[in-house]
Amino acid sequence: MKFERPNIQQMTGYAAGEQPQDEKTIKLNTNENPYPPSPVVDETIKRFTATSLRRYPPPTAAKFRSIAAKLHQVEENNIIATRGGDELLRLVITTFVDPGETIAMSEPTYSLYPVLAQIHNCPILKVPLEANWALNKDFIKKTNQAQAKLVLVVNPHAPSGHLLEPAEIKQLAELSNSVVLIDEAYVDFIDPARQYDCLSLVKEYNNLIFLRTLSKGYSLAGLRFGYGIGHETLISPIMNKTRDSYNLDLFSQQIATAALSDQNYASQTWHKVREQKQKLDQALITLGIKSAPSEANFLLATLNADLPMTAQQVYVALKQQHILVRYFDAPGLQDKLRITIGTAEENDQLISTIKRLFSSFQ
Amino acid sequence: MKFERPNIQQMTGYAAGEQPQDEKTIKLNTNENPYPPSPVVDETIKRFTATSLRRYPPPTAAKFRSIAAKLHQVEENNIIATRGGDELLRLVITTFVDPGETIAMSEPTYSLYPVLAQIHNCPILKVPLEANWALNKDFIKKTNQAQAKLVLVVNPHAPSGHLLEPAEIKQLAELSNSVVLIDEAYVDFIDPARQYDCLSLVKEYNNLIFLRTLSKGYSLAGLRFGYGIGHETLISPIMNKTRDSYNLDLFSQQIATAALSDQNYASQTWHKVREQKQKLDQALITLGIKSAPSEANFLLATLNADLPMTAQQVYVALKQQHILVRYFDAPGLQDKLRITIGTAEENDQLISTIKRLFSSFQ
Repeated sequence: MKFERPNIQQMTGYAAGEQPQDEKTIKLNTNENPYPPSPVVDETIKRFTATSLRRYPPPTAAKFRSIAAKLHQVEENNIIATRGGDELLRLVITTFVDPGETIAMSEPTYSLYPVLAQIHNCPILKVPLEANWALNKDFIKKTNQAQAKLVLVVNPHAPSGHLLEPAEIKQLAELSNSVVLIDEAYVDFIDPARQYDCLSLVKEYNNLIFLRTLSKGYSLAGLRFGYGIGHETLISPIMNKTRDSYNLDLFSQQIATAALSDQNYASQTWHKVREQKQKLDQALITLGIKSAPSEANFLLATLNADLPMTAQQVYVALKQQHILVRYFDAPGLQDKLRITIGTAEENDQLISTIKRLFSSFQ
Repeated sequence: MKFERPNIQQMTGYAAGEQPQDEKTIKLNTNENPYPPSPVVDETIKRFTATSLRRYPPPTAAKFRSIAAKLHQVEENNIIATRGGDELLRLVITTFVDPGETIAMSEPTYSLYPVLAQIHNCPILKVPLEANWALNKDFIKKTNQAQAKLVLVVNPHAPSGHLLEPAEIKQLAELSNSVVLIDEAYVDFIDPARQYDCLSLVKEYNNLIFLRTLSKGYSLAGLRFGYGIGHETLISPIMNKTRDSYNLDLFSQQIATAALSDQNYASQTWHKVREQKQKLDQALITLGIKSAPSEANFLLATLNADLPMTAQQVYVALKQQHILVRYFDAPGLQDKLRITIGTAEENDQLISTIKRLFSSFQ
C-alpha cells in the first residue's frame, strides 16, 4: 500500500545543483557569492553562546524585520522573514492558492516553481519568454485568461540574467488579477546605473510581494535566510497563520541581522562580482562563447554548433576537472551553460580549462 | 479584495507560549529543558567559521542522519531531519493527506495539530481522551470509521504527561488504516524503568512514523531541529519530494550532530529533570494542587474549586511576578495549569510564590 497522495506519487522532486562539501571543487553551479560574508558575521559568531539556544527563539524575527524595514524604507509589517527564499515561495502558494487553481510562470524560469505547484496539486501555466529573454508580450493577458491565482516572476531572470524594468513590474501588478510574486534573489548584483528599485510599489499595490534572500548577495547560502516585502494584507496571513511557528532559529536571526546591517561590505562584493562578470564575459567571447546580457551573478553562455564541444560535453568535461557549472537538460537550454561568477582565480581557471578542452579538438 | 484562500481567512493561527527575551523571567511555560546544552555544543560553536556559510549546506543532513540511525539502531533511510518537529508534522500532512481528507487526533492534544489541519483544509476528528488521559478505548475504531488518512498521537501526552505503552503503539499501527504519527517530543524524559522503546516498530509497520526533537531533551529549542524515524516508504517521498530543498542550515546540522552524540550529558539532564519533577509534584501537593502522573518534563496541575484561586487567576498573578506557566482556555483544561519543570531554584521560587498568593486569601 502506498500512502502518498496521488499528486506526490506522480511528481519528481526538485533537482538541486550538486553540493560537494570539499574545498577543492570550483563551484560555479549554484550562484553562491564567491566572497566570504561580512566580518561582522564573524564577530556575531564569536559572541554567540550555546546557552542562548536553550530557549525558543524570537518567533517573528522582529529585530531582523526592523533592520530590513529601515533599509528598504517600508514598515515592519511589510516584511516577513523566512527560511531562505524557498520557504516564502511555498508559503505564498499555501496562503493564496487553492489546490486545483493555476500558478503561472514564464518558461524557462527557476526550476523550483513547478515543483512547488505540483506539491500543492496546482495546474501550471508556462508562458514562453521572448527570444531576448524578456517576458512574453502577452504574459499578463494569458495569465489573466487562465485565471491564475499566483504569478511567479524572477527578476533579474534566471537562468538568463535579463532584467525587467520597474515600469514592467508596475504594469504586472496593475493589470494582473492575481497575487504577483517578484523573485529578486539576484537583485543585489544589478548595476546601480540601471537605477532598479521597485519596493515602494508594495505601498501602492495590494497584490505584490517581493522575494529577497541572503544566500547570494550576502554570501550566506549555508544560513537559509530570506525575506518577503509586500503589502501588509499579504504579509499578515503568512506571518500569523500559515508560517511554521518559530520558522527561524536564533543563530540565523542574529547572523542575518548582522549581515544586512553591513551594506558597505556587501555592496563591495557586488561591485567585484560585476567587474568579474564583465571580464568573464569577454574571456568567453574570445573562446567563441556568447552570453545573454546579465544583471545577475551568473552568465547564461551559449555553445554554438560551430564550437568543438556541446554544452553538455563541456559540463561533463569540466566536472572531471573539478569545476562545476550548471547544465539544464530542458527545452531551449540544451545548448547553454549557466556559469556562476567566481573569484578572478576561479574564472581564470575555468577559461584556461575550456581553452585546453577546445584545443584538444584542433 | 482579499487574496487569502477561504480556509485561511476563516482560521486563527497557532498561539505559541509567550517568549520574553529577558533573562529575568522564570519561564515554565514552553517546556524547555532548564539545563544548558552539552559542552560539545559550545565547542562546535567555537569551531564554526563565517566562511563555511558561503556555500549551500549539505542538502539531506547526511551526517546527522548517520549518527541518529546508529543511536536508534535503524537505517539512514529511516531518518529524515527537519526544522523542529513542526516541520515534520507539516510535511507528513503535505505528503500523505489530500485537502478534504480527515486528520484524527485525541482531545486535548498538542494545539498545533488542528492548526496544521486547517491550513491544509482538512476536516479534524477529535476523539476525547479517557478520564485518566489514556487514549479513548474506541480511538482506532473511530478514526478508521472516519476514514482518517493520518492519526496524530503525542506520547508522552501533552499537556498531561500520560504515557502509552509500546503495546498500545503497536496496536495503533497494526489496526489503523492510516498513517500513524507518534509525536515523541517528550520521550527523553520518560523514566528508564518504564522500558519504553517503540522505534524498532518502524521495520515492521509501513504506516508508522515517530517524531523526535532536540528542543526539549537536548536543550536546543532555539536551534529548531527535529527528526522523523519511520518506514522507508514514508521517509522517502518527504525527503525527495515535499521537503523544502536545503531545509536545514549548516550551523544547525553541526550543532544537532554534536548534541546527539553526547548522550551521556543529555541523559544527565533528563535524570535531573525527573528528580525535580518529583520534588515539584510533592511541593504542589502540600499546597493542595494535584497533578496527573507525568512522564514528560511538565506537570498538568489541577486547581480545585476549594483552593483560594482559580487556575487562570494563578496564571495571571504568577505572570505579574515574572513567572510564566501555561494556561489553556480550552474545554477540560480551564481548571489546570501546565508547569514546565525548572531548575531547583526556579521550582522553589514558583512554590513560594504560589504559597504567598494563596496565603493572602487567608
